[in-house]
Amino acid sequence: MGGIVVGGITVDGVTVGGDDTQLLIARAYLSRVSEPACIPVWDLVRRCGPVAAAAAIRDGAVDRYVEAATQARRDSVDPVADLEAAERYGIELVVPESDRWPHFAFAALERTGLARAERYHHGERTPSESGELMPPLALWARGRLELASVGVRSAGIVGSRAATAYGEHVTAELGYGLATREVTVVSGGAYGIDAAAHRAALAAGGPTVLVSAGGLDRPYPPGNAALYERVAESGLLLSESPPGCAPQRRRFLTRNRLIAALSTGTVVVEAAARSGAMNTAKHCVGLGRPLMAVPGPVTSPMSAGCHTLLGRDAAPALLVTSSDDVLGVVGGVGEGPPPIRDCDPKLPAGDRRVALDQLDATARRVFEGLLVRRFARPDEIAARSGVSPLEVIRALPTLDLAGLLETGDAGYRVASRRRPG
Amino acid sequence: MGGIVVGGITVDGVTVGGDDTQLLIARAYLSRVSEPACIPVWDLVRRCGPVAAAAAIRDGAVDRYVEAATQARRDSVDPVADLEAAERYGIELVVPESDRWPHFAFAALERTGLARAERYHHGERTPSESGELMPPLALWARGRLELASVGVRSAGIVGSRAATAYGEHVTAELGYGLATREVTVVSGGAYGIDAAAHRAALAAGGPTVLVSAGGLDRPYPPGNAALYERVAESGLLLSESPPGCAPQRRRFLTRNRLIAALSTGTVVVEAAARSGAMNTAKHCVGLGRPLMAVPGPVTSPMSAGCHTLLGRDAAPALLVTSSDDVLGVVGGVGEGPPPIRDCDPKLPAGDRRVALDQLDATARRVFEGLLVRRFARPDEIAARSGVSPLEVIRALPTLDLAGLLETGDAGYRVASRRRPG
Repeated sequence: MGGIVVGGITVDGVTVGGDDTQLLIARAYLSRVSEPACIPVWDLVRRCGPVAAAAAIRDGAVDRYVEAATQARRDSVDPVADLEAAERYGIELVVPESDRWPHFAFAALERTGLARAERYHHGERTPSESGELMPPLALWARGRLELASVGVRSAGIVGSRAATAYGEHVTAELGYGLATREVTVVSGGAYGIDAAAHRAALAAGGPTVLVSAGGLDRPYPPGNAALYERVAESGLLLSESPPGCAPQRRRFLTRNRLIAALSTGTVVVEAAARSGAMNTAKHCVGLGRPLMAVPGPVTSPMSAGCHTLLGRDAAPALLVTSSDDVLGVVGGVGEGPPPIRDCDPKLPAGDRRVALDQLDATARRVFEGLLVRRFARPDEIAARSGVSPLEVIRALPTLDLAGLLETGDAGYRVASRRRPG
Repeated sequence: MGGIVVGGITVDGVTVGGDDTQLLIARAYLSRVSEPACIPVWDLVRRCGPVAAAAAIRDGAVDRYVEAATQARRDSVDPVADLEAAERYGIELVVPESDRWPHFAFAALERTGLARAERYHHGERTPSESGELMPPLALWARGRLELASVGVRSAGIVGSRAATAYGEHVTAELGYGLATREVTVVSGGAYGIDAAAHRAALAAGGPTVLVSAGGLDRPYPPGNAALYERVAESGLLLSESPPGCAPQRRRFLTRNRLIAALSTGTVVVEAAARSGAMNTAKHCVGLGRPLMAVPGPVTSPMSAGCHTLLGRDAAPALLVTSSDDVLGVVGGVGEGPPPIRDCDPKLPAGDRRVALDQLDATARRVFEGLLVRRFARPDEIAARSGVSPLEVIRALPTLDLAGLLETGDAGYRVASRRRPG
């Protein structure tokens, strides 16, 4: 295939812009042709690669599940126009093939996505079911913060749009305290807790990531347009949707998984019993990341969700009262006691040897930097293995797919057993 | 020995008032001669009985530990005068030999007291160490509520004297809601949370028990004297100290163990990081009873203690937000999910047979009413065994001492193994 047909225009990727351009156009096409977190489309891309997958979708040469998910837009999507529009707004498309992709943060999503795709292939999961914990096909980004390292030391701070003065006060303390200690504050740019979290991080001159449910040219809510601008100036705006996309209800829910995935741990500050923040909390738990909740007055409906998360029946959340508490969970070694999981220690040596033989030299050094019992963060693994933190981050997904790695709340360690499949 | 010498007056218990009077006088003497929760004195009483123990103390015929704990007052205590003064105030002395003694509630204290006394005998614990979880030697009581059944269905509600409006509001909801459902509200009669708890129970026309740190003729704080009167009218005032005793600091701490022991479970509503309520919470955990805490604003120092109890490092407390939540913990079967402990199921049949042979018919029936796996409350055991709840309550300590019984948060069941000693 020398190029793909998009929006009625033939783009010859090879001759016009090289492989990278072809890849970008394919990913741009994929990011609009179906809704985010679609299992069949993600699976097609995994098996065929993005360029062939985009071409197959455009040609209708796909199975009925992919067809159902893509037929409405397959002829009308114009990825080149999307990329051009993005460029005008200072928005870039970041793809999984890029060094800028947040492999570290998305390792958990890759794992859940792979598991869901396997179940889909084995007929255990129909494609119409929620594919919520699927990795994104691409990310539209605007800002100055380096995307690749987001998730190494970051905290999702989420909560109610109709926050109380109490909730906004606590959020300001958390966001400011974390950002001053170089913890990236991740949130969704909404009114209430989200906006308070971003503002506090900006006030501290610290890093913040705003994950939007719609196109980055369409700040939502429009009243937070100035906040979007400020985040773009020093932090990062992210969206799965190309410019022009409206923030539809479903996109808020799929967006929430990205907040959870990009966060080392997520804090729910205030949340009604049923709310978007509770949805983010569910994703956080689903990804195996530490969930935290701030208690509040039992008389406040805005704290009811937090108390549910902290209650004995649910009990997946840690109670936190300050940025110090959160730092103890999402921070590095020595900044607080990270939660430890119980697991048994080692892979049988023979099994591990086979997998190790297939690794490149860097990945092998990273593996040797892993600890057997304790989970370590990339910076510690980097120090132990003598490679750069960025190389560690890049090698981790490889080690994970080889079944050599185990992901925990506090980082990574040697896998205790080979994973099935 | 035909009588004991007290306060310079020889009282011939046998001729003047019979065994009961002799017993009451001995217990009255013991309740003043040493401070509450004294391991050596409790142990002496356990081994010799109260009458001989009181006589030995009076005569100085005791070991150096008992002597050290009693020599300051052994000649000046006048138990007859104390009993006469008590009678003038409508205060009665309730002794462990009486059917009115709260055997059910104090079963846990008997167990911890016995264990501490054993360690004391084996030299593992010096008597100067805290004997906090020792059973009381006697209780001074004033009021209408039946003492024996307190603890079957009761909730300690404790917290800060300097309560906030929030704390008092939540306490009122808890106390009222529990008292309307016939849960006895147990507290300490102090300003703040304590007083709000008693008042709410009284407003609901429900049962409440006030455990005082000083003599019941000396309400403390004096500003709560009217509250003491109201509790005496429909509930119960209790103290370990005879009339006239000042509420000294140490007596507040020993008093707190009685609040925990008389409560099926204890709720901390508001508490500073270091406070009497945190001391009561510690006792509750020490007795194996369920501890609950109400969250509040993280900005409130009065909720800091509660958040510590609910945090992951301590984590002995259940988060509760309403009287329904508390009822689910302290209420009977079907009123909520009581916490279940994991234990293995049965005594070897041979062991149990020996112990069973030594029981009277009622105790045997009560034993047969116990479940093997699930903890059951006395009312349920009564229904299963066909004896009255009061008979169950009286038989439980016997079964416990015979090693046939296991006490849990949710009641009693067949012991999973014989206890040491």
